[in-house]
Amino acid sequence: MTLPELRRVLVANRGEIAVRVIRACADLGIESVAVYSDADASALHVQLADEARAIGPPPARKSYLRADAIVEAALAANADAVHPGYGFLAEVPALPRACAEAGLRFVGPPAHVMELVGDKVAARAAASRAGVPIVPGSDRAEDADAAHAFAGEVGYPVMLKASAGGGGRGIRVVAAPDEMRAAFSGAFAQAEAAFGDGALFVEKLVERARHVEVQVLADELGSVVHLFERECSIQRHRQKLVEEAPSPGISEQLRQDLCASAVALAHEVGYVNAGTVEFLVDVDAQAFYFLEVNARIQVEHGVTELVTGVDLVAEQLRIAAGEPLSFMQDDVRRYGTAIEFRINAEDPDNGFMPSPGRIEALRLPAGPGVRVDTGVEAGDAVQPFYDSMIAKLMVWGRDRDEALARARRALDELVVDGVTTTRGLHRRLLEWEGLAEATADTGALEALLSADAPS
Amino acid sequence: MTLPELRRVLVANRGEIAVRVIRACADLGIESVAVYSDADASALHVQLADEARAIGPPPARKSYLRADAIVEAALAANADAVHPGYGFLAEVPALPRACAEAGLRFVGPPAHVMELVGDKVAARAAASRAGVPIVPGSDRAEDADAAHAFAGEVGYPVMLKASAGGGGRGIRVVAAPDEMRAAFSGAFAQAEAAFGDGALFVEKLVERARHVEVQVLADELGSVVHLFERECSIQRHRQKLVEEAPSPGISEQLRQDLCASAVALAHEVGYVNAGTVEFLVDVDAQAFYFLEVNARIQVEHGVTELVTGVDLVAEQLRIAAGEPLSFMQDDVRRYGTAIEFRINAEDPDNGFMPSPGRIEALRLPAGPGVRVDTGVEAGDAVQPFYDSMIAKLMVWGRDRDEALARARRALDELVVDGVTTTRGLHRRLLEWEGLAEATADTGALEALLSADAPS
Repeated sequence: MTLPELRRVLVANRGEIAVRVIRACADLGIESVAVYSDADASALHVQLADEARAIGPPPARKSYLRADAIVEAALAANADAVHPGYGFLAEVPALPRACAEAGLRFVGPPAHVMELVGDKVAARAAASRAGVPIVPGSDRAEDADAAHAFAGEVGYPVMLKASAGGGGRGIRVVAAPDEMRAAFSGAFAQAEAAFGDGALFVEKLVERARHVEVQVLADELGSVVHLFERECSIQRHRQKLVEEAPSPGISEQLRQDLCASAVALAHEVGYVNAGTVEFLVDVDAQAFYFLEVNARIQVEHGVTELVTGVDLVAEQLRIAAGEPLSFMQDDVRRYGTAIEFRINAEDPDNGFMPSPGRIEALRLPAGPGVRVDTGVEAGDAVQPFYDSMIAKLMVWGRDRDEALARARRALDELVVDGVTTTRGLHRRLLEWEGLAEATADTGALEALLSADAPS
Repeated sequence: MTLPELRRVLVANRGEIAVRVIRACADLGIESVAVYSDADASALHVQLADEARAIGPPPARKSYLRADAIVEAALAANADAVHPGYGFLAEVPALPRACAEAGLRFVGPPAHVMELVGDKVAARAAASRAGVPIVPGSDRAEDADAAHAFAGEVGYPVMLKASAGGGGRGIRVVAAPDEMRAAFSGAFAQAEAAFGDGALFVEKLVERARHVEVQVLADELGSVVHLFERECSIQRHRQKLVEEAPSPGISEQLRQDLCASAVALAHEVGYVNAGTVEFLVDVDAQAFYFLEVNARIQVEHGVTELVTGVDLVAEQLRIAAGEPLSFMQDDVRRYGTAIEFRINAEDPDNGFMPSPGRIEALRLPAGPGVRVDTGVEAGDAVQPFYDSMIAKLMVWGRDRDEALARARRALDELVVDGVTTTRGLHRRLLEWEGLAEATADTGALEALLSADAPS
């Protein structure tokens, strides 16, 4: 197929997600335009794209975070559209807005939808309207007293969250009343610094919760489908490390309820393009609560692709071209289990300190049921300026045991010489019941790592 | 799972299939023992195996073709079993026999079954008994006169085939009576030289036929399942270059008939382990004829894995361990289309001359729906002693168009510097109707290449 509305797409990102988008463009017969900072001039995404344009020096705020430079490059390259990837400008309305003003399509939801779901209070209200359970939470808390009043109603522990936050950032747990005042002023200052907006709200802390999220796709004509869920409870500092589809800890009924809730919420907010609706799941009670919407393709989208066969990035491009979804909900199949391991250039034995440097040798595992998405090659430098994730090792099996066996083998096969990575940690996690038996809640890995840490 | 009967397996092969078997062993928790000739001491299969043993110098007859050296290495390494891969010793009863004598399991059918299906006349007789259509053909033709008498009955053109041949070797087309005498003596001498057995038989030539083959798995307890078919009509000099699952040119009824025939034949000969039943298909008539049984894993097994999710090499190992099949016929799913492109170190513009040499740079394509099986890494030398196939590029798509689009992209992404390969040929074949429209019969590529050849 070809997409007459989308002949040339600028990919406003770097690393593995830029490579991923460039591949999807090529599969659809769309030309791709890479952008790069001076530090990335010879990166894989630059080599694989049909054209590449420099947009400034590192760090990101001088290049990948500059919506003006991205749009200028897109116009100069005669691109029809901009794909933001994830991170950088993918999570703020500035880029879709700048694209709209410049007459460019944006491969993602329109700015007003991104704004709505990006406002945590507004998103919770939309979830309520759509009949989706939400964690008991306040409206905007004006001050520490208001926050404490609400916490008293629902009971401590609670969380203070930045209304403009996302991706686990800007969250503080408040275990008891006497911690509230200091927590509030700290969280306020942090939110203002990080997001330019100090607005906070309070949420009851669901203890021993799992993080389960549902992938949705919505076209411009108002159709919404889900592609089932991902289990993402294995996290450190609220950053996901291992993701899996389907979630091994939920019943079929809960799966259906989660997926139906995600679709209902997407309809409620007029969602367009690929998005993820995140939930907290209380597995014991088989209850769930809306957490947030991520209005972009996510790092872990590949596990959904492996179990459904659907190319999510290609679907993003089709949707952005104005096409109707190419399949109906009943066409979505699910087969087997897929698990992703984030290979970060970090030292797990040293506080996950970033480990930039030159990759002296790189051997990527392969074979049946193994997929590795990466933006680096042997000889490349891992830059200190950017996210430390250098590869996503994904495995698929007809069942979970087969997927886990392949994970063991693939992690053993992976060689990254020159930088320290999370490979060895993942290999050990495969023997940990949190992963092996799928018992981990979102705090389990953190607890394991603290217990392991030298005293 | 673990297989108590199979703790350590010697892999009696090299290159991508040795790597493939070593990966399957690792996935099943089985230790692998590689063997290598002096030319392969640093090869990938040697590096990935748990142990490696030298078995002699190149060429193959001094190492990989020596059943005695293989068995000796297996015993010395305390292996329980030997996996032959394909080629080398995989197609002759000498290795299963030597294994049986040494008390080793053989990952393949027993010697007497291999012998039966390896004898083309006996195999045709078995097919007849199983009710499987066979091409009109003679018993052993004692001389050219006997061959001519039979050819007169069924009508020219006919083929002279070596009774002990296989893989397309030892076959001559005889178009008219006056060619028979010379063809017979030439074929007899060639068969004797190649197989140590000059026995010939005559078969009617099915014109414009397709090559379609069915994958079967059979356990030691007598259960047989099929995993659907592969289309392998794109051949040069009877060597497959592109393979695909499912076959795009047959009806669902014909598919069912082919698969049922393959299972019936496997039952008839008491088949055990993985095998392939090859058929000639007359697409216009939607008729088919038994061609031969390949009593080994085949190069193109990966396309079946991609559409069914079944790890065929792991199943081979389970069967060799005496396990029953882990699934029933009704459990076998089929989803999408997979196509394999053999990346050979050959120069298609120069008569497919082998192109040995050092691989200066190697970039393997990746991303959703792409799998590359290879036994080489950047810096490796492509040896002149062995088969020129250095990688198998496989693509999968939800439908054939998606698979073909990914093939285009993946072939564009593939970089092999230092040796000439079939990459560019495959890229051109994607625009050829024989592949794009799936119209190719087994002679179509040859015709295309002759037409293209400089006069």
